[in-house]
Amino acid sequence: MAEGLKIQNSDLNLQFGGRIQYDYNRSEENNQVDEDDFNLRRGRLFVKGNISENWSFKTQFNVDGSGAEDLYLRYNGFDSGQTITIGNQNMPFGLEELTSSKDISVLERSAITELFAVGKAEGIQFNGALGNQTYALGLFTDNDVDSEKGFAARYTFSPVKTQSSVLHLGVAYKNISDDQALGLEAAFATGPFHIQAEYTDGTTESNNDASGYYVQAGYIFTGETRPYKGGKFKRVSPSSKSGAWEAVARYEDGDGNHSDIELGTTDATAYTIGLNYYANKNVRLGINYTDGEDNNSNDTGNELRLRFQVTF
Amino acid sequence: MAEGLKIQNSDLNLQFGGRIQYDYNRSEENNQVDEDDFNLRRGRLFVKGNISENWSFKTQFNVDGSGAEDLYLRYNGFDSGQTITIGNQNMPFGLEELTSSKDISVLERSAITELFAVGKAEGIQFNGALGNQTYALGLFTDNDVDSEKGFAARYTFSPVKTQSSVLHLGVAYKNISDDQALGLEAAFATGPFHIQAEYTDGTTESNNDASGYYVQAGYIFTGETRPYKGGKFKRVSPSSKSGAWEAVARYEDGDGNHSDIELGTTDATAYTIGLNYYANKNVRLGINYTDGEDNNSNDTGNELRLRFQVTF
Amino acid sequence: MAEGLKIQNSDLNLQFGGRIQYDYNRSEENNQVDEDDFNLRRGRLFVKGNISENWSFKTQFNVDGSGAEDLYLRYNGFDSGQTITIGNQNMPFGLEELTSSKDISVLERSAITELFAVGKAEGIQFNGALGNQTYALGLFTDNDVDSEKGFAARYTFSPVKTQSSVLHLGVAYKNISDDQALGLEAAFATGPFHIQAEYTDGTTESNNDASGYYVQAGYIFTGETRPYKGGKFKRVSPSSKSGAWEAVARYEDGDGNHSDIELGTTDATAYTIGLNYYANKNVRLGINYTDGEDNNSNDTGNELRLRFQVTF
Repeated sequence: MAEGLKIQNSDLNLQFGGRIQYDYNRSEENNQVDEDDFNLRRGRLFVKGNISENWSFKTQFNVDGSGAEDLYLRYNGFDSGQTITIGNQNMPFGLEELTSSKDISVLERSAITELFAVGKAEGIQFNGALGNQTYALGLFTDNDVDSEKGFAARYTFSPVKTQSSVLHLGVAYKNISDDQALGLEAAFATGPFHIQAEYTDGTTESNNDASGYYVQAGYIFTGETRPYKGGKFKRVSPSSKSGAWEAVARYEDGDGNHSDIELGTTDATAYTIGLNYYANKNVRLGINYTDGEDNNSNDTGNELRLRFQVTF
Repeated sequence: MAEGLKIQNSDLNLQFGGRIQYDYNRSEENNQVDEDDFNLRRGRLFVKGNISENWSFKTQFNVDGSGAEDLYLRYNGFDSGQTITIGNQNMPFGLEELTSSKDISVLERSAITELFAVGKAEGIQFNGALGNQTYALGLFTDNDVDSEKGFAARYTFSPVKTQSSVLHLGVAYKNISDDQALGLEAAFATGPFHIQAEYTDGTTESNNDASGYYVQAGYIFTGETRPYKGGKFKRVSPSSKSGAWEAVARYEDGDGNHSDIELGTTDATAYTIGLNYYANKNVRLGINYTDGEDNNSNDTGNELRLRFQVTF
Repeated sequence: MAEGLKIQNSDLNLQFGGRIQYDYNRSEENNQVDEDDFNLRRGRLFVKGNISENWSFKTQFNVDGSGAEDLYLRYNGFDSGQTITIGNQNMPFGLEELTSSKDISVLERSAITELFAVGKAEGIQFNGALGNQTYALGLFTDNDVDSEKGFAARYTFSPVKTQSSVLHLGVAYKNISDDQALGLEAAFATGPFHIQAEYTDGTTESNNDASGYYVQAGYIFTGETRPYKGGKFKRVSPSSKSGAWEAVARYEDGDGNHSDIELGTTDATAYTIGLNYYANKNVRLGINYTDGEDNNSNDTGNELRLRFQVTF
């Protein structure tokens, strides 16, 4: 399901693409409306390409002027298929974090993922696969003034992997100064059904202990299977012209960045229900409702979110 | 007169393009030189495309890092040709405002248009056409911190519309919290001649009453007719290899943003004369002289402006 | 050695391309580590194109949101091959400054070049060539608030210019308010060897007298010749699939911006040694070591720099 439009001459091929995500969201804290807004969530363009047989690159940036996302040079000349990636890129940590924002089934990632998520990071990463296993090891700097350095590593294994079923297991560890965490991943998809869970335990950059988990399940009424490749899930691609419909639910508990439901960075419990309509492989509409409660203060929060998404 | 370069594969077509506008401007306030400068006026790139039969999108951004312009997803799957556009887009208000900066005959829009112009706004808009009529209704948020919501609507009618003549009438109303206005539009083009006028009355976002109007006329020596489509004018496209020449004049009176001639937001009277050279359908050179006087303080201001424009 | 990918329809051709440069650099001031960092050095995309026979344009911007680089409209309709360029562009001053950052043999330009370098500037420039001579004259504004205007001019002559040898001589002068300088350039390349030197004397924008020079030499083990065209050098293009290797050395003395080796803007002496590997015409890896001493304070500084570069 390659995205973007590919053009080619004798020396070089380039692929152009991007994403637009607009959201309406209405959130309440203790039953008081706090946000009621229509806003750009993400607007990005990318160019990627292959250079000779051994090198490739990707440049992706936010069109609102807020900076670069992926921006890297990659060596893929090893016979055994490994790659070395140099520049701004995803750190190998977390199934939900590594699944593209175009492809996640719940519109926003879980609070524990958002707490430890660093977005893209500058560094050098080694990636490979062996049968149904993937492995990644990278050296990274954080984005602080002091540019502290560290590493992140991830290993995944899919003991079941057929056309219509996958069982995914993963473990990752990162240690970049005060930002340290261990992550455990498990997911199972069969036919139109999937379930996915992660547990993360660590200390954040501001040096606080934190741990939490989420469990997510989804069902595609129109019968498609959620695609899986290289230790990550991809977006549902409708098999008929009338599109695909998917229902999702998520339960989460523990420390996390619960700011979507106006609870901030705290220890909370929340559930989300949602519905996605994949009009075709490029257009997706989604609606989510999340409701949660702070485990200490008993503050409550909720959010209704609509998403209009086009990827090209 | 489609702009940009179109490339296509089996699933997707993308169109790439942009504009560069550089201006030299020299302005005086009470006969004292205030600005004497050569500067970028606009530098933008866009990507737009069609996705299946029913969906399209546009991403346009300023290459100087100052942010996105158009950034929207559009549904155009209605049999009767209407569209729904979701995201950052033009608000349906004002003939001069809705005519692209690439296509306006006077280099800068009138003071009353600039007072009420909001640039692009985030929202959802419904557009349609019926014979020689166009209609648009949109819900928008303003760009303030409080994200106030409101609507804008526009209706246009062209009782005359032939190959070489058009009579355009339009009315628009917007109400987004304190930003409220009624706009009336009239224009007539026949052969190489056109005349165009707008009157706007409302209250601005800072809650001030304001009203004003402009009348503009133009004549194309080389005989082309100013193109008109979908309730808007387009740029003159030269019919011969030696290009097209157009003379324009504008008179304006009333409240407005008269900052180009250093009078600021006030009640003033101003006239502009100008000359455009359309070297081909992509390159346009223009020169304008504007002279005005504050209706209350009798302060005077003027501006000489040269423009170098390429659109691709 | 055209870069970028060219696509074309009947009216228009566009060329897309860009560069990514990531650097690791470790610098010391008086033997204390001051920087030890992996960072984006440059990430740019460009679109350029031809419009009819007489006009062209270029738009180049930084994908991190830090703004536009080249952004100009060019008239190239003179029979004798001269061009007029309007917009943001290179000022005609300095051999090293005018050689693209993709193409310089030492990873960073010399301290005297960096002191007087203005990057891109807004203005109008006239360029031409006559046999082995090139000439350029431009009017520019500086980037200060007061937008002071001035001019820059450059003349180059290549008394020797064969397939494998070039002798280059150049002189340039610029005078934009307090930013005034005279620059002298000389370079000789024959087979795999090149030597290049510049002397600059002037006053900086902050109105300080400054003068300095550098001498640089390089040798390409794999036998290629450093390309030269239009009064500038280009990047080494490997003649075999296994790439090209180049050793470089530079000695510099005098006033300059010596901040790479943590000495700041001062009078210093420094030498650099380096090695480049051109994997193919798009990928270049480089390593440099620079060591210097302040001529007055005897402070010392050094830097180790690695570069990963892809151009497309």
